[in-house]
Amino acid sequence: GPSAAARQGAVACLIRSVGGADYRLPHTGQTKYADDAPKIPAGAVTAEDADLIVDLVRQGPVKMKLILTPQQLPDVESYNVIGDIKGSEHPEQIIIVSGHLDSWDLGTGAVDDGAGVAVSMEAANLIQKLHLKPKRTIRVIAWMNEENGLAGSKQYEKDHREEWSNHFAAMETDGGAGHPIGINIKGKFEIKKLLAPVLAVLQESGAGGTNFAEHVGADIQPMEKADVPAFSPIQDSRFYFNYHHTAADTLDKIVPKELAENSAVVAVVTYALANMEQPLPR
Amino acid sequence: GPSAAARQGAVACLIRSVGGADYRLPHTGQTKYADDAPKIPAGAVTAEDADLIVDLVRQGPVKMKLILTPQQLPDVESYNVIGDIKGSEHPEQIIIVSGHLDSWDLGTGAVDDGAGVAVSMEAANLIQKLHLKPKRTIRVIAWMNEENGLAGSKQYEKDHREEWSNHFAAMETDGGAGHPIGINIKGKFEIKKLLAPVLAVLQESGAGGTNFAEHVGADIQPMEKADVPAFSPIQDSRFYFNYHHTAADTLDKIVPKELAENSAVVAVVTYALANMEQPLPR
Repeated sequence: GPSAAARQGAVACLIRSVGGADYRLPHTGQTKYADDAPKIPAGAVTAEDADLIVDLVRQGPVKMKLILTPQQLPDVESYNVIGDIKGSEHPEQIIIVSGHLDSWDLGTGAVDDGAGVAVSMEAANLIQKLHLKPKRTIRVIAWMNEENGLAGSKQYEKDHREEWSNHFAAMETDGGAGHPIGINIKGKFEIKKLLAPVLAVLQESGAGGTNFAEHVGADIQPMEKADVPAFSPIQDSRFYFNYHHTAADTLDKIVPKELAENSAVVAVVTYALANMEQPLPR
Repeated sequence: GPSAAARQGAVACLIRSVGGADYRLPHTGQTKYADDAPKIPAGAVTAEDADLIVDLVRQGPVKMKLILTPQQLPDVESYNVIGDIKGSEHPEQIIIVSGHLDSWDLGTGAVDDGAGVAVSMEAANLIQKLHLKPKRTIRVIAWMNEENGLAGSKQYEKDHREEWSNHFAAMETDGGAGHPIGINIKGKFEIKKLLAPVLAVLQESGAGGTNFAEHVGADIQPMEKADVPAFSPIQDSRFYFNYHHTAADTLDKIVPKELAENSAVVAVVTYALANMEQPLPR
């Protein structure tokens, strides 16, 4: 990053955009400055422009003029959006189903993470439409400020960390809306055995796979760290980084059928967790 | 276009970008105004933005503010670049091998049509490197101003139309640098039979196909119209319109192996035409 470059004497820092597409799209991301290095201007260039610069540098000294327009504005008040379906037997026990509301301003954030918010809301909607009565509380959260510091997640932690033992499980969908093939699990290996009947149901539509992961969702990380079992759908992510954090992250990229598939998977897992006989091991 | 819109009372005209990619790239193109309609501002919007506008219009009246920066500057002098390998037996008879020099300013024009210029130059280069002696003259042309009115092609026509009968054949490569599978032919069906031995050679590398077309190259159209047999490589064009006339038309899109394949096909056809025993039917 720019701090490492500044320590070497750099006056500015340009990062080659990461991403899966080669359509001259700059890819936005967060820049963090270390306290002990000069804060030099930093920006992202497209892969094509990075290639061009490399080619020019090979031919001799290159002079660049940077006009960077981003501004750091003061924080403003904003909110997590939270809705509960109250549990019929253990209302104090909570299953979180979530995505995040904010996105980067180049695009509209349909893939990252409008899809996750839609999937989470639709999962709860499906459960209600099917007149299912969850025994535990299902809490849909649209997190605020995932991209820029996780303020929403941190506030929720501040408000609820005394109740982590009552947070039965947490889910987050933040990997786009691609076809799901199963669920990621952050938790004890025994969880898979306990979920076997649910996975058998999911497998009927090809989404019965499991993957144990170190980390499954940015906003639910405080709960992950407190050993609350955490989940996310395993999604087809081949195209996610084509659009991620670029101007091309718009609604036309969402395939309604695949969005619905994700909602179904999240709904099945959520309802199963809400009605499990025994608690999950921590 | 804008003239049709203006006749209906429009004050400006926005065209949905054509192209194969969905990466929020506007696609440039030519705007022609009719003499009998008001000349209203016209521009292209990306497919994503077109979708957004359609969606907004469905919800009610939409107000747009257009800031269009393009300028029509006066013409400046520029040149076709022409090089001959003189024929050993019929130097007055000419095979044209060509691409065009100009491109749209958003990108660098690597696919459209740096590739065609490179292929044409390399075809002649291969023939010289192999110490082949063409009986007819091979004329490599890098046309100027294909995109914006064909001034180079028109000037060549003006300078050479008295010699069309000596123009044995004309080729143009203006469809990118994708893997070639054969040659397009604008001319009499008998040409295929006469080229059979050449096509057999090309077929060894999978490029022995033929396609009779109405039109094979913009710059060689005056010769097509004068019944000069015209050719172009049949290329894998699946990705051409992803990059065509956009900011993403840059050198990294060219696959060196496929560029070389096109050069080989054009070289084989060119040399065969230069050394054919009999003239092609017109």
